[in-house]
Amino acid sequence: MNPAGAPPATGRLLLVPATLDFGCETLTPLSDVLPTGTLTAAATIEHWVCENAKTLRAFLKRVDSHVPLARPLQQLSITELPRDVYKKGDHAGAAGGAFDARPLLAAALAGHDVGLASEAGMPAVADPGSSVVRAAHDLGLTVLPLVGPVSLLLALAASGLNGQDFAFVGYLPQDTVQRIARIRELESLALKTGQTQLFIETPYRNAALLQALVQSLQPHTRLSVSSGLTLTDGSATTHSRLVKAWRQHLPASEMRLPAVFGIGR
Amino acid sequence: MNPAGAPPATGRLLLVPATLDFGCETLTPLSDVLPTGTLTAAATIEHWVCENAKTLRAFLKRVDSHVPLARPLQQLSITELPRDVYKKGDHAGAAGGAFDARPLLAAALAGHDVGLASEAGMPAVADPGSSVVRAAHDLGLTVLPLVGPVSLLLALAASGLNGQDFAFVGYLPQDTVQRIARIRELESLALKTGQTQLFIETPYRNAALLQALVQSLQPHTRLSVSSGLTLTDGSATTHSRLVKAWRQHLPASEMRLPAVFGIGR
Repeated sequence: MNPAGAPPATGRLLLVPATLDFGCETLTPLSDVLPTGTLTAAATIEHWVCENAKTLRAFLKRVDSHVPLARPLQQLSITELPRDVYKKGDHAGAAGGAFDARPLLAAALAGHDVGLASEAGMPAVADPGSSVVRAAHDLGLTVLPLVGPVSLLLALAASGLNGQDFAFVGYLPQDTVQRIARIRELESLALKTGQTQLFIETPYRNAALLQALVQSLQPHTRLSVSSGLTLTDGSATTHSRLVKAWRQHLPASEMRLPAVFGIGR
Repeated sequence: MNPAGAPPATGRLLLVPATLDFGCETLTPLSDVLPTGTLTAAATIEHWVCENAKTLRAFLKRVDSHVPLARPLQQLSITELPRDVYKKGDHAGAAGGAFDARPLLAAALAGHDVGLASEAGMPAVADPGSSVVRAAHDLGLTVLPLVGPVSLLLALAASGLNGQDFAFVGYLPQDTVQRIARIRELESLALKTGQTQLFIETPYRNAALLQALVQSLQPHTRLSVSSGLTLTDGSATTHSRLVKAWRQHLPASEMRLPAVFGIGR
């Protein structure tokens, strides 16, 4: 019962993690990487904001085979984040300012839970989406993150690098000279402060990045590379060695999957 | 069949996340936060290295009610990490050097999978354990991180702060003057580089830290506080506001649960 004059209850913003097998040949069983609680929540959400509607529909089809969706896929309301946000990030909109995502949350103001999803892993972590979360806070909505796979943290745990002080810095520069300078800057920071430095690369450039790292880093720096995390076909690997040992074991075969790189002492 | 002369297959090191309700009154249903795959793996492991054997046994009892354990609890081999490692971290052993955890992995060399667990969340992330992971790599063992809740990443996603460039820096100094200096240093870094800065505090000091943050930070810095993450009794909250808004809404009631703090622009 809604007392006369009281505002209608608002919906929540649920952060729904997806699997990490986006674009991979073998799909990870959902029950390996998503708790039943997350699958159940995803199955009940009727309003979505996402990176890519097609990917979200494919994901929800997989969810449906575990927990039946509350409504048929075609009846869900799915809004894609503007391409700008995905290209330039949430903090730099078209006009140079931060993206205002509040209009995307109208359904929540009307009382419906809204799901936020990206193509792989946790939305707003190593992926855009934080503008939507910020907008939810600005509107006074409850924000609830659900449990699922986060490649960065799986990689950090598996690296053996310091997990009590670490940073994720995104992508390194593509330009060769700038990239080497950035590698040395991150290494210097990691060695001086003990703060592990994590970064990523687009898969087709992984092998080149690994080569640059092995060539530029000091022999006693530890370098960890995780790829194919959560894949169950045997392709999930984490290799963590001192750079001098990497120089003797440079793999090539596993470098076409999404990877997370880490350096530290 | 093991061909004559071939070395026996070694076991793997599995990183097993625990729930985040350690020490809380209400327990989170395991199926809300752990995928069936993680529960199944935990139920089959017979050799463990952990922070606290009592906590691990209590966790495994809960696992057993979802997926029956392969062996009775009393028959499991459970080794606690030395207290030193839990006090000073994996990177500073008694003799000042890094802790050598290789002897803890004898079971893996003999062919058994070994589980690594901490009292809450992911081992080796915001918790010790990286020495065991490093030892596994040094011994050539496969390291496999399993999916579960990681408070830092749930908090980051829910904060609306930049998740494409962030750092976790552990605890801030306890000394008042040093703490304020560190807060200003982290704020300056966050505002200058855009890198979100995350940190934690022991629960009974949360309220004092929040007060210090609200007093010391600049009005337009965004401050996020997540507490009770994954708790299902309604106590899971994330508040994310500009400091000037925090000054008008200083909560006191929710500050006794484990919390993650984040600042950024």
